[in-house]
Amino acid sequence: MSEQKLFNVAVVGATGAVGEQIIGLLEKRDFPINQLKLLSSARSAGNKILFKGRELTVEEATPESFEGVEIALFSAGGDVSKALAPHAVERGAVCIDNTNAYRMDPETPLVVPEVNIDKVSEHKGIIANPNCSTIQMVAALKPLYDRYGISRIIVSTYQAVSGAGSKAIDEMLRQTREALEGNDVKPDILPVGSLPVKHQIAFNAIPQIDKFQDNGYTLEEMKMVRETKKIMGDDAIDVTATCVRVPVVYGHSESVYVELKNDYELEDVRKLLSDAPGIVVVDDMDAQQYPLATDAAGKPDVFVGRLRRDLGAPRGLNLWIVSDNLLKGAAWNAVQIAEYIAIEQN
Amino acid sequence: MSEQKLFNVAVVGATGAVGEQIIGLLEKRDFPINQLKLLSSARSAGNKILFKGRELTVEEATPESFEGVEIALFSAGGDVSKALAPHAVERGAVCIDNTNAYRMDPETPLVVPEVNIDKVSEHKGIIANPNCSTIQMVAALKPLYDRYGISRIIVSTYQAVSGAGSKAIDEMLRQTREALEGNDVKPDILPVGSLPVKHQIAFNAIPQIDKFQDNGYTLEEMKMVRETKKIMGDDAIDVTATCVRVPVVYGHSESVYVELKNDYELEDVRKLLSDAPGIVVVDDMDAQQYPLATDAAGKPDVFVGRLRRDLGAPRGLNLWIVSDNLLKGAAWNAVQIAEYIAIEQN
Repeated sequence: MSEQKLFNVAVVGATGAVGEQIIGLLEKRDFPINQLKLLSSARSAGNKILFKGRELTVEEATPESFEGVEIALFSAGGDVSKALAPHAVERGAVCIDNTNAYRMDPETPLVVPEVNIDKVSEHKGIIANPNCSTIQMVAALKPLYDRYGISRIIVSTYQAVSGAGSKAIDEMLRQTREALEGNDVKPDILPVGSLPVKHQIAFNAIPQIDKFQDNGYTLEEMKMVRETKKIMGDDAIDVTATCVRVPVVYGHSESVYVELKNDYELEDVRKLLSDAPGIVVVDDMDAQQYPLATDAAGKPDVFVGRLRRDLGAPRGLNLWIVSDNLLKGAAWNAVQIAEYIAIEQN
Repeated sequence: MSEQKLFNVAVVGATGAVGEQIIGLLEKRDFPINQLKLLSSARSAGNKILFKGRELTVEEATPESFEGVEIALFSAGGDVSKALAPHAVERGAVCIDNTNAYRMDPETPLVVPEVNIDKVSEHKGIIANPNCSTIQMVAALKPLYDRYGISRIIVSTYQAVSGAGSKAIDEMLRQTREALEGNDVKPDILPVGSLPVKHQIAFNAIPQIDKFQDNGYTLEEMKMVRETKKIMGDDAIDVTATCVRVPVVYGHSESVYVELKNDYELEDVRKLLSDAPGIVVVDDMDAQQYPLATDAAGKPDVFVGRLRRDLGAPRGLNLWIVSDNLLKGAAWNAVQIAEYIAIEQN
């Protein structure tokens, strides 16, 4: 057996919710690492993080940080990716970017390994990781797309606050305590940190994730629309999304209606999904088993259940799709892409 | 001015979550009451409830309790309504039943006052109050139905635990405390009290409300399908529902996709809804204003927002509909019907 190539890897946003998960997965998956650089903003630099029993110091990310880096995983916000990824690419790194910065760039492949891993080879230095809510949906729908074709998707989401970062989790837990104690609840971050109006997330459901666009949809909703078409490689799929934040810590749930192009049998759909990589079917009415956010938390898979034929449209199918938004929805999808690149270079 | 007729009124299920709201509304609305009887199971009999400054004692509901009663409001579960409503009718009472017992009975009108108050006169002793999740949806969609026609509805719900009763609220608050303290969460009631398998509701989203039917839908989902057709008086409307319990105390939210039969302008829809009785449009993207469960709690109205044209179907429209499930979704709808009956008899 030939010697395995080891990589110089950088994690940008190492102290964030997704960055932490990426570091954990690199360790757990025993990723072939020569040197691991943990990068962050100046504010978080100096923090210590344990990796395989060794304490690593987080450094401030600068263009020079990427000297010698071969694979860089970005999850520090779109602005950081825009500012630093080109410098990393210039220095020869392949960037796997978990932000919205390059997703719709025609030069940048947008990859969910179960759906379009073949696109990785087309990269020009940057590979984009899709939005969490898109990843789990397309991973579950791809086997149906391949077999039956898909004309239309209508999705309503139930998204966890961890998707808005560690501070949003803290805010929800604080608000929940305030509400339980009968005190006034003070909203501070959600729904959108950079916007002026704040709403309570504890014991509530907020139908706004990210900023509103001119067409009345939020950016999160439009991400699901545009990214689904790009990842599936099919602009003809009609996608409508309603994205809602709910008081859940980890795990996005999605109520998905999909209209197939060809007739289907429910049992074939079940088998198709059961056999698909990365998909776990949890769908037993008698045993009251279906995917739940609390069960999906901490697991890399996409869980699918509540499979049922639409009562009106003969080719309509309803599903309930749940996955850990920080894992398959972010860190795990990125590490899967990194593993593919590592294998390709071995 | 002629003297106002006063009624002998009974509230069955007086100590329950909905019963409490009914009693509060009868007082607040100054309902023309001669005598008020508060009825319950043997277990809750003897409880004292304050009504207009007088302490009333809750009595066990028996067939004889309805002697002399003219209007009886039932919200003590389907079995109680089945057992006792016929006795109340026999004794001359008009029953407004808030359970599932008579809703699909062809002899029983199923009434949402904003939609089909004319059906009340067809009653044979019992008028059924629809399911909470149905009421707010049809109230909001009726103006659109009348103007444009509706061919199809796809709805995903975000339902509050108060819909499962006071004990479910207690369970959620207890579980939330357990989770915040880092302790094991012990599910005891939800998703369905009478079924063996329990799931955590704190920081979760449970895609099961009521029992599963043979077609893979839950009873709650099928209620939305069947009741919508009956209330609208149109069996040709295709309805698909996914009903989900979320950790919210009061207020159901609904993500609704509706396909109209005729072309529409979004501004006309907004005006139509703004002018409709019982509907409040909250829809201002710049100000980040949209309906929220926490804002709807304690109010009788149905709140509608996130109005936007579907990106695929030219006659498709998306809405976010929120209302207090114990008020418009139950107690207030029932008291509205009672007020109509009282006015008719004056």
